[in-house]
Amino acid sequence: MKSYTLGEIATHLELELVGDASCVVNGLGTLSNAQPNQIGFLSNPSYIDQLAACQAAAVILSANFADNCPVAALISDSPYVSFAKASALFYEHALSSAGIHPSAIIDDSASVSDSAIIGANVYVGAGAIVGDRTVIEPGCSIGANAKLGQDCHLHSNVTLYHEVQLADRVIIHSGAVIGADGFGFAIDGATSIKIYQLGSVRIDDDVEIGAGTTIDRGAIEDTIIERGVKIDNQVQIAHNCHIGENSIICGCTALAGSVTLGKNCIMGGASGAVGHITIADGVQVSAMSLVSKSILESGRYSSGTGQMRTSEWKRSIVRFQQLDSIARRLKEIERQSDKE
Amino acid sequence: MKSYTLGEIATHLELELVGDASCVVNGLGTLSNAQPNQIGFLSNPSYIDQLAACQAAAVILSANFADNCPVAALISDSPYVSFAKASALFYEHALSSAGIHPSAIIDDSASVSDSAIIGANVYVGAGAIVGDRTVIEPGCSIGANAKLGQDCHLHSNVTLYHEVQLADRVIIHSGAVIGADGFGFAIDGATSIKIYQLGSVRIDDDVEIGAGTTIDRGAIEDTIIERGVKIDNQVQIAHNCHIGENSIICGCTALAGSVTLGKNCIMGGASGAVGHITIADGVQVSAMSLVSKSILESGRYSSGTGQMRTSEWKRSIVRFQQLDSIARRLKEIERQSDKE
Amino acid sequence: MKSYTLGEIATHLELELVGDASCVVNGLGTLSNAQPNQIGFLSNPSYIDQLAACQAAAVILSANFADNCPVAALISDSPYVSFAKASALFYEHALSSAGIHPSAIIDDSASVSDSAIIGANVYVGAGAIVGDRTVIEPGCSIGANAKLGQDCHLHSNVTLYHEVQLADRVIIHSGAVIGADGFGFAIDGATSIKIYQLGSVRIDDDVEIGAGTTIDRGAIEDTIIERGVKIDNQVQIAHNCHIGENSIICGCTALAGSVTLGKNCIMGGASGAVGHITIADGVQVSAMSLVSKSILESGRYSSGTGQMRTSEWKRSIVRFQQLDSIARRLKEIERQSDKE
Repeated sequence: MKSYTLGEIATHLELELVGDASCVVNGLGTLSNAQPNQIGFLSNPSYIDQLAACQAAAVILSANFADNCPVAALISDSPYVSFAKASALFYEHALSSAGIHPSAIIDDSASVSDSAIIGANVYVGAGAIVGDRTVIEPGCSIGANAKLGQDCHLHSNVTLYHEVQLADRVIIHSGAVIGADGFGFAIDGATSIKIYQLGSVRIDDDVEIGAGTTIDRGAIEDTIIERGVKIDNQVQIAHNCHIGENSIICGCTALAGSVTLGKNCIMGGASGAVGHITIADGVQVSAMSLVSKSILESGRYSSGTGQMRTSEWKRSIVRFQQLDSIARRLKEIERQSDKE
Repeated sequence: MKSYTLGEIATHLELELVGDASCVVNGLGTLSNAQPNQIGFLSNPSYIDQLAACQAAAVILSANFADNCPVAALISDSPYVSFAKASALFYEHALSSAGIHPSAIIDDSASVSDSAIIGANVYVGAGAIVGDRTVIEPGCSIGANAKLGQDCHLHSNVTLYHEVQLADRVIIHSGAVIGADGFGFAIDGATSIKIYQLGSVRIDDDVEIGAGTTIDRGAIEDTIIERGVKIDNQVQIAHNCHIGENSIICGCTALAGSVTLGKNCIMGGASGAVGHITIADGVQVSAMSLVSKSILESGRYSSGTGQMRTSEWKRSIVRFQQLDSIARRLKEIERQSDKE
Repeated sequence: MKSYTLGEIATHLELELVGDASCVVNGLGTLSNAQPNQIGFLSNPSYIDQLAACQAAAVILSANFADNCPVAALISDSPYVSFAKASALFYEHALSSAGIHPSAIIDDSASVSDSAIIGANVYVGAGAIVGDRTVIEPGCSIGANAKLGQDCHLHSNVTLYHEVQLADRVIIHSGAVIGADGFGFAIDGATSIKIYQLGSVRIDDDVEIGAGTTIDRGAIEDTIIERGVKIDNQVQIAHNCHIGENSIICGCTALAGSVTLGKNCIMGGASGAVGHITIADGVQVSAMSLVSKSILESGRYSSGTGQMRTSEWKRSIVRFQQLDSIARRLKEIERQSDKE
């Protein structure tokens, strides 16, 4: 368990401390549950009522709430960002071991940095390159000629196919598969002829990819994930997608082939997009919504229906099937009404 | 192949046998296809017509159908429960090997029970604890300080991150990932600052988790799965969810962060819930429905539309986009009609 | 990098070449981006405008466009099929190593063909059979008595449970799990009694299965995937489904238990089907649509709503909940109107 004085915390996070700099803390807590050896935070003003009873050693909050803080205050212009930075200070993740674990299989033609950490039962294929300080945890499989930059972190049981390229500081969680064949077939009568996928996947700096996510290699050209993109668990990104920088893709989203997603977009959980469309910068798609045609303007988009009691919903879906008739009948009534 | 006499079956399942106790059986079959060396069952009365022609050695059924049974009868108050118990008798699953396989990598500081079975190429990290009779199949990776109770069974290629806690009799299927980082970022201008996830995942007794399912660790506090919960394949449970006991979550369901699901709920296949909501005990959500706000009363809930021929559906969705206008125009017509 | 003369390409693909047979090419490109050492193709006539500026060494196209081709022409009745066949010529995938890697664990009772390739850290369980020229890449786990035919290819970190059967030329991508327990429980009061899944999974010739896909074993009888079926990433196929030959299942589709899908069907991305239904041959289901009852006739089917601006969509979903009332009120207006 890592511990710091409040003075050290203030220095690390570049915050003003109002309180005892020598007080020692060893973790973070929610405003309502933080213990006297933890730091709390107040970023959403709707929790302000919890501040008075807070028992934390200190609270990260904005200057306008500092006077109401019953304990030490760490004053921040962006309390949530400061909280995020504080979380990094307390994170502990024991690595499998330093260096290359004896059980790892590294192809003779692979190149692994001396400062990289390769866990048990990892496989690194021919011609692969692993950069400085990159960590590959147990059970990962790195395909031939894959290239990993510096300070990447692959959690256990990640698979990178051949030729996949990761830039620096890419984090990939367990079970993710990068570079599997795109789903491409040419229909020849009743049978499907496989289109071998000759492109690869290129992932730029500071991308994080969640557990069980799959990103397919391109058919001819590469699938591309730009810098700063954050992808949650069990997302499917098909071949030749191009994801713009700093976009956020929430869990279980499915993007079909050749989708171009702009910068700073947010795809809500379990949302989707059909293939060969373009989504503009700054678009936000609601949870479980399907983008069925290109979106040319930023803004929020949705599909689906709201939740209902099933008994009532059953009546609505019957009427949904009659909607065209309903609209036509209404128009007819309006027409008659106008004539009268 | 395991075999039993009908007498042994009756004793194991605590059922009344009407028929030859010495008859030997070695499996289960459906009522229509069971062979003379198998046991059939009748739990859904709509299959009663198949009983007369049944060729099974015996049929598990309720007392009121016993007179119609052309073969031996195993009389049960709950035929489906008895069938479930019978399935356990015939299940065979050859384990990789007893003890710790020589290729497994067990950290020196880990503690593995003498009665545990650890398969080939398994990795068990520093400080991890593996309880009595727990089975870990080939290729699993157990993070530092993870704790597995007694009689757990991890199928091949499961990943547990550091600190994850399993109580007793937890079954986890292949490819599942427990304890990956929750998807948390603080937006700082155009970039996303990672919120390190300091909580863990706690899974109580008798939970079963399907293949490819992901359950993320909590941001500050833990993600919690209560006892008896059954989770199907490819389910995503985000950080800080709390799943109430005996709830059932069908395949491909996605729960966003901080969802509190009550006890004895059923989330239908590919359903979802947005974050930070509460779902009451006993709620049932239909397949592919989205829970977009808290549900305070038990009952059945749905969203979406029924399936249609695409040609007709296209007309309905055009009208769906006009629905507000349609409703307003109808109201106007009603107003005029009232005036007349 | 593989290279061929255009003459060799023409011979391999059985195409007529109009141009220099000795010209050497080493890859494929899109019509607009192909380099002078690559082959382009024109299958969709809407790209005809790009032909004049094409810089490829040659273009695969139909005879009616040959006169417009500024470079060598490879004339095909089915340019897309010919392109697919060409992709196979240029595909390179360095295997981990020939033979059985020393780190692989093969049970003494397993039978592995001399021509099979078994990668690092693979586990092959008791009684398993691996056919001629079948490739199993690093980290795969093959359960007891599983049977793999000839020319199969399992990418890294695939899991086959016990007894699973693959015929010939089956390709399975990383992270896929075949044969995990179907999701079956008998409810006994508040608790769920596990129904042990006694069936297996049988996969016929020429099936391809995507990354992270899960196919569960049958409860009593087997789950069956017929020949030529193509399954994309993160698809969930529950116990006792029967998928008809040459059907195509796009990414993230979820089929509940005992779904019978016909031949030559296409399940669109992230579509789904509830359990115990039948879908006729030749059915096409749109992306993110739910099949909630059997489909008896071929054709295209959809559910859901089209995408909208969220602000407008919110009005539509309010009205969707009022639809039954709207329809009844319209009928009342029509009734009054008729009386007048």
